[in-house]
Amino acid sequence: MNTLTALTVLDLASVVIFALSGALVASRAQLDIVGFAFVACLTAVGGGTVRDVLLNRHPVFWIESPSYILWATGAAVVIFFTAHLLESRMKWVIWLDSFALAVAVPAGVAAALETGQHPVIVVLMGMATGSLGGLMRDVVCNEVPLVLKQGELYISCAMAGAIGTLIAMTAGLELTTALLICAGTTWALRAGSIAFGWHLPVYKSRPPRQ
Amino acid sequence: MNTLTALTVLDLASVVIFALSGALVASRAQLDIVGFAFVACLTAVGGGTVRDVLLNRHPVFWIESPSYILWATGAAVVIFFTAHLLESRMKWVIWLDSFALAVAVPAGVAAALETGQHPVIVVLMGMATGSLGGLMRDVVCNEVPLVLKQGELYISCAMAGAIGTLIAMTAGLELTTALLICAGTTWALRAGSIAFGWHLPVYKSRPPRQ
Amino acid sequence: MNTLTALTVLDLASVVIFALSGALVASRAQLDIVGFAFVACLTAVGGGTVRDVLLNRHPVFWIESPSYILWATGAAVVIFFTAHLLESRMKWVIWLDSFALAVAVPAGVAAALETGQHPVIVVLMGMATGSLGGLMRDVVCNEVPLVLKQGELYISCAMAGAIGTLIAMTAGLELTTALLICAGTTWALRAGSIAFGWHLPVYKSRPPRQ
Repeated sequence: MNTLTALTVLDLASVVIFALSGALVASRAQLDIVGFAFVACLTAVGGGTVRDVLLNRHPVFWIESPSYILWATGAAVVIFFTAHLLESRMKWVIWLDSFALAVAVPAGVAAALETGQHPVIVVLMGMATGSLGGLMRDVVCNEVPLVLKQGELYISCAMAGAIGTLIAMTAGLELTTALLICAGTTWALRAGSIAFGWHLPVYKSRPPRQ
Repeated sequence: MNTLTALTVLDLASVVIFALSGALVASRAQLDIVGFAFVACLTAVGGGTVRDVLLNRHPVFWIESPSYILWATGAAVVIFFTAHLLESRMKWVIWLDSFALAVAVPAGVAAALETGQHPVIVVLMGMATGSLGGLMRDVVCNEVPLVLKQGELYISCAMAGAIGTLIAMTAGLELTTALLICAGTTWALRAGSIAFGWHLPVYKSRPPRQ
Repeated sequence: MNTLTALTVLDLASVVIFALSGALVASRAQLDIVGFAFVACLTAVGGGTVRDVLLNRHPVFWIESPSYILWATGAAVVIFFTAHLLESRMKWVIWLDSFALAVAVPAGVAAALETGQHPVIVVLMGMATGSLGGLMRDVVCNEVPLVLKQGELYISCAMAGAIGTLIAMTAGLELTTALLICAGTTWALRAGSIAFGWHLPVYKSRPPRQ
């Protein structure tokens, strides 16, 4: 599997999963079906769009292949008619988002590798592609952004996954394997943070003076 | 009238009308005259800028013709000195925004047609150009975004207008007529929603269990 | 000193100072160390990135020289371990931000001059480069944006500084001097506003009718 094929598969998977999470957030905001599709598409392609514009990769992936938009819209329609079947929508948002993050990070990494970027930029593109779609979803719908929720790992998982890819490739593994390691590392850390509360120490200021 | 002329007229009209709406929102936030100009320019060129960057149309329309910025600034100055004459500023914002939407959607559609995009992308560019300037205005000034207000048609009007253009062109109408149909459809639906409460069914979760 | 050298120096200075201000805002939001780095990088490169994308200057400055990112990350780490030593973090944010603004405005002006833009665009790029990084920092961390705080000069300082550069260059001064005048004007006005409350008249609606 070459870089471009891997990239297409990862982009499609992250588009669909992010779209499902976006539509669920739209259901919490009680939008109509076009609003569902709008938020789903924004979440689905937001991170990858920023990546492509920053790397000057034109046409942007969904402008080149508009079927991504149709997939995201389809996901929004499915959620519009089924969200009421879910027990806890917020739980679903958080878990779907974790899977979307885990496929979007390697998608960002692969795109940066394909255009021959410096390792620092490869890691940053993984972090940006993984987190910005969800950040746009949360800012537009006025939710507390998952990416900045205190006492949880999120952007750190993306960073660890992206660095993992680089280590794996330096160790001589081929691209597909390295991207799988990226997805696995990202998801395992994020899932551990959701399920078991794994976190890094957060900044605490000293107590105020008397 | 060719595509580029139509595009220039539409861009200018949407810039001025969006700038008026942006300056009125700035008046609600009690900014100074430079703040008025800043919000007016952001609202006026925000949607078209995203459209141009995504479609890789450089230079961006207002960088090529800086007079757009002067028009938007002029609109801001006029509002700074006259806003106190208006009875209800929020009502004016909503109605001005409806006109700006109705000219910005065909502006986005025309730019996408000019660069030969797929129909799905044409519709999306209409929706993005129409809605993103207003969205930036509302996010920056901390108002509830008009585009996501529950129980109102907004992004749906943009979608209907953009699809209308495509139908009109497929039916053999020439571009100018098709763009007029786009503007008319968008405005009629939005005005109907403001005046008569037209809306699509919104998502309602089932009642919580006992 | 030619335009490109001046630009590199200004970009680096604004990156480091904005990064410090971003990390301090992250400390107010009690993020972990990766969150500090994320907010610091976003603040540090946000304005310059928008400038480069709008002017179609690729690669974007920090993609071409990833060391900017390392500097911003380093600044974030320093703040993570030292922020508790500061008496009033918000005061530091405001003053650091004033210095960052004062170097980012000439950085935007220089980049626009280098690509041969119209004077209106030169002024706007100065304003955008100066203000957008801080605006992103405040929106993402849910602080009231400094740029739109009522009754303070902010975006006006950027405008005055940028216009100052153009006047200085028209008067025959060389670029480096003109950029120093830009930084000085911007900072003096902003510092005057913070320290002495200098401001422009803000919009006041007439009193509501009885």
